Amino acid sequence: MIERIAIFGTGLLGTSVGLALRAAGFHGTITGWNRSPEGAQTALSMGAVDSISTDPLQAARGVQVVVLAVPIYATLDWMERLACVLGSEHMVTDVGSTKGQISTAASRLFNTPERAAFLPGHPMAGKERGGAALGDANLFRGAVWLFTDDPAAQRSPHSAALVKSWRQWVAAMGAKTIDLEPARHDELVAWVSHLPQFVSTALSALLEEEVGDAPELKDVGGRALREMTRLGASPYSMWRDIALTNTEAVQAALQALEQRLAQLRENLRTSELRDEFEQANRFRKE
Amino acid sequence: MIERIAIFGTGLLGTSVGLALRAAGFHGTITGWNRSPEGAQTALSMGAVDSISTDPLQAARGVQVVVLAVPIYATLDWMERLACVLGSEHMVTDVGSTKGQISTAASRLFNTPERAAFLPGHPMAGKERGGAALGDANLFRGAVWLFTDDPAAQRSPHSAALVKSWRQWVAAMGAKTIDLEPARHDELVAWVSHLPQFVSTALSALLEEEVGDAPELKDVGGRALREMTRLGASPYSMWRDIALTNTEAVQAALQALEQRLAQLRENLRTSELRDEFEQANRFRKE
Repeated sequence: MIERIAIFGTGLLGTSVGLALRAAGFHGTITGWNRSPEGAQTALSMGAVDSISTDPLQAARGVQVVVLAVPIYATLDWMERLACVLGSEHMVTDVGSTKGQISTAASRLFNTPERAAFLPGHPMAGKERGGAALGDANLFRGAVWLFTDDPAAQRSPHSAALVKSWRQWVAAMGAKTIDLEPARHDELVAWVSHLPQFVSTALSALLEEEVGDAPELKDVGGRALREMTRLGASPYSMWRDIALTNTEAVQAALQALEQRLAQLRENLRTSELRDEFEQANRFRKE
Repeated sequence: MIERIAIFGTGLLGTSVGLALRAAGFHGTITGWNRSPEGAQTALSMGAVDSISTDPLQAARGVQVVVLAVPIYATLDWMERLACVLGSEHMVTDVGSTKGQISTAASRLFNTPERAAFLPGHPMAGKERGGAALGDANLFRGAVWLFTDDPAAQRSPHSAALVKSWRQWVAAMGAKTIDLEPARHDELVAWVSHLPQFVSTALSALLEEEVGDAPELKDVGGRALREMTRLGASPYSMWRDIALTNTEAVQAALQALEQRLAQLRENLRTSELRDEFEQANRFRKE
């Protein structure tokens, strides 16, 4: 039943959503808006959107589903602006990496019988570099797409049906959907997503300082070093909002790892090192 | 000129050396010895060796090149035993991950005109799990193979020629060779190899404790989590010897990372986070 979609933000994720929808057989219209016209043009030329909007609020009114694929604070801004102009015949969803503030705003601004539905979403997929040109129809295949929907949402039957239909399109893009409470989401991703990112950033920055002047020696680390520092290429522009909206959970995870590393360092020559390797082995057991 | 090789230890690396030599066109004999007969049988059935030795010292006397592909302390033990039974018509090399103690032992036990040559080597290649069955003829293709040879070695012309020939075979296996001093080697690999391993172990062990009871949620982390914890599967049996023979350099690297993580944690909400991301971006710049 979804026939008209607008994607706000045609970066890596927004462009990939458009391409994945097409690959999954979506034949309706997809209009795109992007802060920089170049990114929108790239998404258009790749077929991720079939038109570019220069008046995003008007575009939003003309579609059934708005997908916000912009950083978190920009998402919060769009939610404020869209809440007033959309109604019960619309739904809005997002792809932001933290869900606490977005879910709170959704309950405040959306999800009444007169207003649009808002479904907070978070596809666990990405690349260490962004941009429309890296858009990939298969980005979500096999990935998990988390939702932190409000079970108390009071939606019109129409917007509730749109939410249900969007969930089916997410599954059709190849993702496995999991529903979580917003607070549990933010705590969980602090461990399994944000902690790995900040560790990779700190490790990459440290190595740049220690061995960065010996570029030929970067090869020395091989695949292990490349993997452990791949996320070091991630842009601050995206992670700043995550650091600001999930600060306490990320701090707790970082501090726990610092303590774990200190413990390991003090036990390099004791049998506790074996216990630590065996505990790590368990995490990686198939 | 090398026609007879013995590989001591037909685990992942030893088996891969045999397979890579064959793939590079080595037509001489390769005999294998392994502590467990099963590992030797697997290497034999894969074509990595063409015979299995049950008397390794006799086998060593019958070949020109002995490749030690066992953990570091086992390498040091074999060096003691081989030094007495081999002469100037032989060379010995190894694949150990730390080179300080091995290089010292090499100068003490080998590299005189009457004795065998010893070339300390370290291919920067591996997998997170070991064993002959994972042996791979392409394991060293594109990898760096480090040597920490002693420029003061006093070798017979014959053993010196074997060393030169072995270097050519390493290149033929597809590896890029780099020569380093032993102390510099151990410091460098503490940063680019041992630090990433111990970080991945600590991260994996921590996550096992925090989210290990929610196995379906491991998927949530996606590719980033898989990469950052892949080395968590590495066996203690191999890393124990590395921790014991490169303790100080690894401790210094771990402590530097702990401090870096604490600094990042305290600056999640400041512009210092941008500086850290930009420094990390530089390390990953192509």
